[in-house]
Amino acid sequence: MAEIVTAAMLVIGDEILSGRTKDKNIGHLADVMTAIGIDLKEVRIVPDEEDEIVAAVNAVRARYTYVFTTGGIGPTHDDITADSISRAFGVPCEYDARAYQMLEASYIKREMEFTEARKRMARMPRGAEHIDNPVSLAPGFRIGNVHVMAGVPAIFQAMLDNVVPTLKTGTKLLSATVHCPFGEGVIGGPLADIQKAHPDTIIGSYPKYLDGKFWTELVVRARTQEALDAAHAEVEAMVLRLSPGN
Amino acid sequence: MAEIVTAAMLVIGDEILSGRTKDKNIGHLADVMTAIGIDLKEVRIVPDEEDEIVAAVNAVRARYTYVFTTGGIGPTHDDITADSISRAFGVPCEYDARAYQMLEASYIKREMEFTEARKRMARMPRGAEHIDNPVSLAPGFRIGNVHVMAGVPAIFQAMLDNVVPTLKTGTKLLSATVHCPFGEGVIGGPLADIQKAHPDTIIGSYPKYLDGKFWTELVVRARTQEALDAAHAEVEAMVLRLSPGN
Repeated sequence: MAEIVTAAMLVIGDEILSGRTKDKNIGHLADVMTAIGIDLKEVRIVPDEEDEIVAAVNAVRARYTYVFTTGGIGPTHDDITADSISRAFGVPCEYDARAYQMLEASYIKREMEFTEARKRMARMPRGAEHIDNPVSLAPGFRIGNVHVMAGVPAIFQAMLDNVVPTLKTGTKLLSATVHCPFGEGVIGGPLADIQKAHPDTIIGSYPKYLDGKFWTELVVRARTQEALDAAHAEVEAMVLRLSPGN
Repeated sequence: MAEIVTAAMLVIGDEILSGRTKDKNIGHLADVMTAIGIDLKEVRIVPDEEDEIVAAVNAVRARYTYVFTTGGIGPTHDDITADSISRAFGVPCEYDARAYQMLEASYIKREMEFTEARKRMARMPRGAEHIDNPVSLAPGFRIGNVHVMAGVPAIFQAMLDNVVPTLKTGTKLLSATVHCPFGEGVIGGPLADIQKAHPDTIIGSYPKYLDGKFWTELVVRARTQEALDAAHAEVEAMVLRLSPGN
């Protein structure tokens, strides 16, 4: 029996919504989730506003197996993710003793002042567990099914590498791709028939447009090799049948 | 008095959530909205599932001045945006006479069959208005405050160009950027003080990490030049004050 494990992502940050920063983390998380058999079902990008973050995290953590957030865990006044997640879980946001000591020791060693701003990075919801940050030290954290990580892509990716081995993964969705030299108008009808005949698969049709010409990438997805192969063969046969000369 | 106009974006498509396609439309819409003085407040990426699309569009259209959707308006079975938006508005999804005739004429002219799949592209909620598509003909549509556009970036951008002149725009959020050679730990405290002293501005701090070094981009935003200039000057003075040799 295929086990379905689901996830949602919360991207936190005004800079993404203003266009100033172009998100690179959604695509990376999507790739990693697909690779390990977790279905990413929803992504929300929300501003640096506590009410918005609280509402969004509570909406998605109730619906999906896992939630992953990026952004807002640095030392400045607009980094309000730890406070917001604490409020969402109804627990205090406080200095984590281990994070505080680790950060303090690191700044002492580097002969730098452990400022109030830097101390902010040791704050997390009571009861949270660390997500190690091999790049810049300040940890992310996990509370319940919510994983809170950095927005800087290099740090997010490193943190996610530490999270992945802790996740329950589902039955991986297998996929097969068929290159189709026609636009969707040609194949829409027969493709819908194949989808109807193979309800245990998900058949996607992705239109591509390049230099004035349309082509289509057809993707068959299924949780068993048998289901995949059967639908894949029919899609390939359809494309061949429609090709000139046939 | 500054007028605030808000927007949300709905990205519709399994291919984005699986990582197979990397979204390019969010950043483009964000840039355009910022340029014309509309605040993009939320983005959601949802799968090709009617219930999910209906719930998301109803959630955001009630909250924001405008909603923009991308994806799911092609001719194949997984293109269910027109049906979903119709259900969200409680109106029938039917062939639009003008879209149908335009598509039919185009296929006749090109000596191509006007297949059932192609006819799907003429379907839209009753009462919707066309959004012209100068690239591939099949129109998007507007109903209420919701603008439904293609997912293929070249087509989305062309449709958005047609939509922009119809939008009410707000007082543009002005911005000024200060390059800060320090990490956020150094400037977090003084920056928070400046934000507190200038409540009519939004001061963002965006950490950058490159080749083992941190630096920070500081962005001041305000709706009047006076407010912007005052906070901007203080941020610049702070960076200077913290620089070595001062």
